Amino acid sequence: MNVMIDLPPWAVSENANLPDSIDSVEDRMRAVIRFAGLNVQKQTGGPFAAGVFEKESGKPIVVGVNRVTPLGISSAHAEIVTLMLAQSKVGSFDLGAEGLPEHQLVISAQPCAMCYGSIPWSGVTSVVIAASSKQVESIAGFDEGAIHPRWKEELERRGIEVTEGILAVEACEILQEFVDSGQAVYNAKTVLKNNRS
Amino acid sequence: MNVMIDLPPWAVSENANLPDSIDSVEDRMRAVIRFAGLNVQKQTGGPFAAGVFEKESGKPIVVGVNRVTPLGISSAHAEIVTLMLAQSKVGSFDLGAEGLPEHQLVISAQPCAMCYGSIPWSGVTSVVIAASSKQVESIAGFDEGAIHPRWKEELERRGIEVTEGILAVEACEILQEFVDSGQAVYNAKTVLKNNRS
Repeated sequence: MNVMIDLPPWAVSENANLPDSIDSVEDRMRAVIRFAGLNVQKQTGGPFAAGVFEKESGKPIVVGVNRVTPLGISSAHAEIVTLMLAQSKVGSFDLGAEGLPEHQLVISAQPCAMCYGSIPWSGVTSVVIAASSKQVESIAGFDEGAIHPRWKEELERRGIEVTEGILAVEACEILQEFVDSGQAVYNAKTVLKNNRS
Repeated sequence: MNVMIDLPPWAVSENANLPDSIDSVEDRMRAVIRFAGLNVQKQTGGPFAAGVFEKESGKPIVVGVNRVTPLGISSAHAEIVTLMLAQSKVGSFDLGAEGLPEHQLVISAQPCAMCYGSIPWSGVTSVVIAASSKQVESIAGFDEGAIHPRWKEELERRGIEVTEGILAVEACEILQEFVDSGQAVYNAKTVLKNNRS
């Protein structure tokens, strides 16, 4: 009675090949979006990726990807998977625990309602976002759920800074690539096959 | 690079001992609250449990518990753990997929912002709740996060019926037992040691 949450083999190799540190948030996002693109090309999950970095040093802890369809687990979004792996690697369920450096979550798209709710529990103090939910919904047709209408303020009120729109164009290109590939959008009860029309 | 989400051995045995079906939602909730109480007594996680049942037949798919502190994973709330295990057992990331019976999520406390967001992705069509978030926050001191102000309506709008207040008193007794035991409340950055005062 257990479930294994893992990354595809290519992503394990790519993590091993990441540099020791990535200075700018743009370059951190570029690394994350590259994983999202590879996830689409290798057909190992949805068109989303997330990375946890030490905020100051830029050391990558882990970059992960969406694993919903390969694992058959609806909560295996990139943010949930990546935060799990990062917490496991760091050895704490609280990435903001005393004695740890601050951690930053870099995500290729605005979090859905679930992933938004997961962020304060995780202990990260910074979130950097590429594509907006509006872009995710209009390009790829995912139902992002009813997130709190003041989600950004609610995160900031909990000491979590939010930066939006970093390399959004590049992230949207991956969403479009996913749509063009005809891979399934995994909304519950309505697994819509993408059709170019 | 992987994380194993599992149940403690006692909960695996208890699952094996569940009856083939449990008719009323009160009795389903009683089974779930029993797991929450055992989780506190065995010190294998937070004071919360969740169960997935076939809605009509009452067949239990799995009853799971909060695993945040034992696994070191902030998202290992009872709902997330239990939905993962249920989806793995049923063989679909969508518990509302065509050809499956309807599934019901029975939870010992109102979902936090994250778990609320996870429900529409899961495919369950019914949620039954014992303790309210107000009770969870006032008795045990967990910060339940900023859930959508019209969370119940937002679930119902997605075809998910919500029933509140089933055996809330019994669920609150478990929360109080947890507080009295002095076990850690796992809010990020502020792991407050409970003190009876």
